[in-house]
Amino acid sequence: MVRVAVAGASGYTGGELLRILYMHGEAEVVYASSREYAGKPIHFAHPHLRGFYRGLVFQNLSIDSILKADPDVTFLALPHGVGLDLPPSLLESGVRVVDLSANYRLKDPESYRRWYGFEHPYPDLLSKAVYGLPELRRDELRGAKLIASPGCNATVTIIAAAPLVVGGLVDGLLVADVKAGSSEGGAQPSRGSHHPEREGAIRPYSIIGGHRHQAEVEQELSRLSSSTIRVSMAAHAVSSVRGALASVHAVLKDRVGFDVVWRSYASMYGKERFVRLVHPRLTPRGLDVKYVVGSNYVDVTIGLDDSAGRVTAFAALDNLVKGAAGQAVQAFNIALGFREDEGLDMPPIHPV
Amino acid sequence: MVRVAVAGASGYTGGELLRILYMHGEAEVVYASSREYAGKPIHFAHPHLRGFYRGLVFQNLSIDSILKADPDVTFLALPHGVGLDLPPSLLESGVRVVDLSANYRLKDPESYRRWYGFEHPYPDLLSKAVYGLPELRRDELRGAKLIASPGCNATVTIIAAAPLVVGGLVDGLLVADVKAGSSEGGAQPSRGSHHPEREGAIRPYSIIGGHRHQAEVEQELSRLSSSTIRVSMAAHAVSSVRGALASVHAVLKDRVGFDVVWRSYASMYGKERFVRLVHPRLTPRGLDVKYVVGSNYVDVTIGLDDSAGRVTAFAALDNLVKGAAGQAVQAFNIALGFREDEGLDMPPIHPV
Amino acid sequence: MVRVAVAGASGYTGGELLRILYMHGEAEVVYASSREYAGKPIHFAHPHLRGFYRGLVFQNLSIDSILKADPDVTFLALPHGVGLDLPPSLLESGVRVVDLSANYRLKDPESYRRWYGFEHPYPDLLSKAVYGLPELRRDELRGAKLIASPGCNATVTIIAAAPLVVGGLVDGLLVADVKAGSSEGGAQPSRGSHHPEREGAIRPYSIIGGHRHQAEVEQELSRLSSSTIRVSMAAHAVSSVRGALASVHAVLKDRVGFDVVWRSYASMYGKERFVRLVHPRLTPRGLDVKYVVGSNYVDVTIGLDDSAGRVTAFAALDNLVKGAAGQAVQAFNIALGFREDEGLDMPPIHPV
Amino acid sequence: MVRVAVAGASGYTGGELLRILYMHGEAEVVYASSREYAGKPIHFAHPHLRGFYRGLVFQNLSIDSILKADPDVTFLALPHGVGLDLPPSLLESGVRVVDLSANYRLKDPESYRRWYGFEHPYPDLLSKAVYGLPELRRDELRGAKLIASPGCNATVTIIAAAPLVVGGLVDGLLVADVKAGSSEGGAQPSRGSHHPEREGAIRPYSIIGGHRHQAEVEQELSRLSSSTIRVSMAAHAVSSVRGALASVHAVLKDRVGFDVVWRSYASMYGKERFVRLVHPRLTPRGLDVKYVVGSNYVDVTIGLDDSAGRVTAFAALDNLVKGAAGQAVQAFNIALGFREDEGLDMPPIHPV
Repeated sequence: MVRVAVAGASGYTGGELLRILYMHGEAEVVYASSREYAGKPIHFAHPHLRGFYRGLVFQNLSIDSILKADPDVTFLALPHGVGLDLPPSLLESGVRVVDLSANYRLKDPESYRRWYGFEHPYPDLLSKAVYGLPELRRDELRGAKLIASPGCNATVTIIAAAPLVVGGLVDGLLVADVKAGSSEGGAQPSRGSHHPEREGAIRPYSIIGGHRHQAEVEQELSRLSSSTIRVSMAAHAVSSVRGALASVHAVLKDRVGFDVVWRSYASMYGKERFVRLVHPRLTPRGLDVKYVVGSNYVDVTIGLDDSAGRVTAFAALDNLVKGAAGQAVQAFNIALGFREDEGLDMPPIHPV
Repeated sequence: MVRVAVAGASGYTGGELLRILYMHGEAEVVYASSREYAGKPIHFAHPHLRGFYRGLVFQNLSIDSILKADPDVTFLALPHGVGLDLPPSLLESGVRVVDLSANYRLKDPESYRRWYGFEHPYPDLLSKAVYGLPELRRDELRGAKLIASPGCNATVTIIAAAPLVVGGLVDGLLVADVKAGSSEGGAQPSRGSHHPEREGAIRPYSIIGGHRHQAEVEQELSRLSSSTIRVSMAAHAVSSVRGALASVHAVLKDRVGFDVVWRSYASMYGKERFVRLVHPRLTPRGLDVKYVVGSNYVDVTIGLDDSAGRVTAFAALDNLVKGAAGQAVQAFNIALGFREDEGLDMPPIHPV
Repeated sequence: MVRVAVAGASGYTGGELLRILYMHGEAEVVYASSREYAGKPIHFAHPHLRGFYRGLVFQNLSIDSILKADPDVTFLALPHGVGLDLPPSLLESGVRVVDLSANYRLKDPESYRRWYGFEHPYPDLLSKAVYGLPELRRDELRGAKLIASPGCNATVTIIAAAPLVVGGLVDGLLVADVKAGSSEGGAQPSRGSHHPEREGAIRPYSIIGGHRHQAEVEQELSRLSSSTIRVSMAAHAVSSVRGALASVHAVLKDRVGFDVVWRSYASMYGKERFVRLVHPRLTPRGLDVKYVVGSNYVDVTIGLDDSAGRVTAFAALDNLVKGAAGQAVQAFNIALGFREDEGLDMPPIHPV
Repeated sequence: MVRVAVAGASGYTGGELLRILYMHGEAEVVYASSREYAGKPIHFAHPHLRGFYRGLVFQNLSIDSILKADPDVTFLALPHGVGLDLPPSLLESGVRVVDLSANYRLKDPESYRRWYGFEHPYPDLLSKAVYGLPELRRDELRGAKLIASPGCNATVTIIAAAPLVVGGLVDGLLVADVKAGSSEGGAQPSRGSHHPEREGAIRPYSIIGGHRHQAEVEQELSRLSSSTIRVSMAAHAVSSVRGALASVHAVLKDRVGFDVVWRSYASMYGKERFVRLVHPRLTPRGLDVKYVVGSNYVDVTIGLDDSAGRVTAFAALDNLVKGAAGQAVQAFNIALGFREDEGLDMPPIHPV
């Protein structure tokens, strides 16, 4: 059994890591940290986990407390900009790192200044981190020591858009319009997440300056293309708890038909373990974030307006699973040579 | 008091017409039709209206039953393609018509073939109908005999986009990404609207072939511009009951700054009775469909990504009020020379 | 026009007071206080009220600032235990008070120790305050100087149970099981009201020691009866934003039939302006909090299990209107001799 | 591997059986029936199961089609009153039956006349069926051939109330007030389940004549007691998708204190695999249906009002898992001698 530490284990992503790792046959959680719940049992933060992880108690996060637990791998589920020093220290001690924050996702140190407002203290390490999106980076992930797990809005947008870019099918600006549930905002209450304010909401957010995930999306899509890809992202809070949907609008380069576009998706995702292609004409119910909740699946479909020569690609995922904890475990599985779906081989839950 | 008939009064739009007309000081509802509830009191279809309209009973819809009630104006809240004969017959009898269906919205008879699948039987009447969007057509509405009240997704998109088009600020395709609540689908149950399937949903619909409201949007925006405006619309069902939000993405023609774009909005909407401009930097809470629920207001804001030279304009409204019944009453008020906000002068309800 | 001050105007009850008073033909809001939003316009706290109350700015609450605004009446929408000194000071200055907190609801000073944990500083004033439930205390309300407006869970329980008690129809303990939406908890965010935690919730609260509204309920029901009425209350948070439903379970004294019980309800509520009786057999849709949202109505019905000799009475209201701001305005109308439904004569909004 | 057939596999309970059995190491689904989806792949009815059960196609239900699939066990997830003939035929052919309908739950044939309106055709078989609530009937379940799986509202009420009855702690009528989510009503759309009507709802149902589950509850609780137990049940639809909560109100016989009552719960449930006791004073977050969603757990707590001498017991479960499919698999595991948690050993999902 691989020994696993989870730093930042009292948040929603932390809770999902604990839920998934409980079902993982090769991993054992030996450490969980939480400032707020230090000294308390797991179910104080995660009442649904009552009865699970009985021996475990939250600890105050420190490099020492992690190392004392002697983990093989540490998952970092901390806020952006927090715990930047942990990866280098852990790597030095021979502990692999899966970082679920944005701290090591971007290759260009400059981007941290613009999008996150800090100077990255370990610019060299950025190039060594592997962006943990298996559908794009599976080969690099094998044996990886430092995995930078993607953001949920970035994941759903990249998955929706990648075959358009890889196939060279579209021209000009991509417009990515993302809608996401309230769990994306994390476990800390705020005015905007107060139930009477959030339930029933349909609202854009970060409309000034743009959405941070844009940097990841452009970085990864550009890597797939011969040219720099520009994406205009808008993010919206809607009245779900779980789930994120990306609608990627683009203009078709050569007015290719549906079959050509569909073939690009089938070729890229046909054999992917966690991507499910939803043919828009052959399935009665279409695509909905509801159909992936609780699972690591991402469902993908496309709509084509032939007369207008434009395509809209859609991807739907569970923001806490394929958008966070599940994808992190998937990348961890690849890195350590486990079955890619170890701990993740379960159907979505519906209706919920 | 003006005598008002409501055909199709048992649906959600019909219910909202009854609610609003109850508060209207110049109108009196003398007729309400419903096939399903014929012979039954109003509260059988609208339990919230228990105690209101005590004398009224639903009638089976027919031109004779309407005329017998001797109305001055008839609101038609019928499904698209139903009751196409009513407007000419009513007009002939001297009864004004406010048609809330799509039946008389499009100027080009051809469009009915493409988008609604029927041959329009009264193509000549199409040119006489006034598209009932007061912010665009106030002058034509004065004294109008036949008002074609706009669709909710069309209204919210046009309101968001119009100042970009009027100002000549943008180039190329407009992308309109609309998110709407479940009441938009009407009062008839279906699999897709079944609560366990709809609650928590984030799903695109009509992804093949496009959204019908696109025709209205292109018609009206093109009229504001010197050139033909093309709009790529995608509609999404989200987990609200009321409300529709349009996010209109566009590329700025001359990389103009925020002030120029804002000025175009202020110039077009600054004095509008039911448009509220939400300055993205000067207001703490931004824009949300929640802030207009129950009212005839449409809130509008914009986001600008200077570096990318693109703008996203947002509009939020209550799909059953400004998106349907409220806007119909607003247009009716203008047509008959009442105060524009008669029956509509009330704040939104929040939180709800 | 009567000059009205609203203390605690940035909360949800305050917001509803502002919404309702806007539609009130005899009252004018001349003052609104808020610690958090002092110096800010109304729409900073209530974005739905953008465009309303343009001249008004929140002030820091003090007796001086209120008196300077020279109000005839002051509504206090403050937390329990806050502003206890305001009523005596205001009354002394000739300003009538409608207190929406629990501060002056209970007649027995002892009860404040037990249920609210403080010594009431003005025990003499308690006997002068009129409990503002018009259906029980209309006569006392006429001309009242100090109105203690009831709690929402108390209102809905008392309305459901009163005819059982007045008619002497039931024996033994009344069980009141209340279910309420999230807006009941007020505008301050907390872990329990965080959207991912609250949406979909069905949970009891205050299960240790009982619900505070029990004191009001027992006080008011006992007054209607020749004996002391004991009520066992349990309150539950459910996944609505607005609305509270009370299910009052009781054992019938003499195994009387449905007609006898119904007659007691009809006799008590048949002429009430804001109580709507829903006959369980004659109406197709029954009773639901959804049918009263946005309005001052309370809907009432009963279920009878003849074989078991028990009755369950149900009442449904909007917790922020009939459960708070609307009922306060209704009592204010009676006190000042206005039409009882002034500012409140509008239908509920449905669906929302 | 045990070969399993699922009749009525396209409903919500059927879908949950398929989800759970996928994770079951000892069972293999060899047959799934659905009238509506006959001939179609599983994901046509259950879009979340896309990619699972690829070889399986829905069949038209008949005894022949089941037997042709040669199952060892058949789960019947059919509506009440449908398929009454299947259990005797299947048993005769040596196929065990787990019936999730009410068809074989009641021991007294008379009860079927009163509560379900039909004459039971196999009264003798009623006495042979084992009521599949493991916490009460584990011993009888071992080796059982015909299991009548309990209703969700019955399960949650019995679990909440049983220790009060077993301990002989309470007197007189038990009042059971149940609140449940919309998935309880099944997959067929109706006016009441239409999203705009159901979202935000708080409404009682079956208020005339009582809730059918009352018969099961009284049968099972009376069996635990020396006397006949009477339960007054009221059921409410609230605005969740999943989950049911029972609040059982009772008067304490001897004014025993908290510890005595708690001991009865601990003694009955302390070692139960799927009951989690939530101490009302020692846990920060209490009990909520949200904490059991997706799992077979039922959480239980109690509240005591010492001064009033009354107790309220609460139980929360996922109506489709512990209230239906999960409990059926749990009973099946016991009957066949598998680990009781086979296929069910997974944490709840939260937040969702």
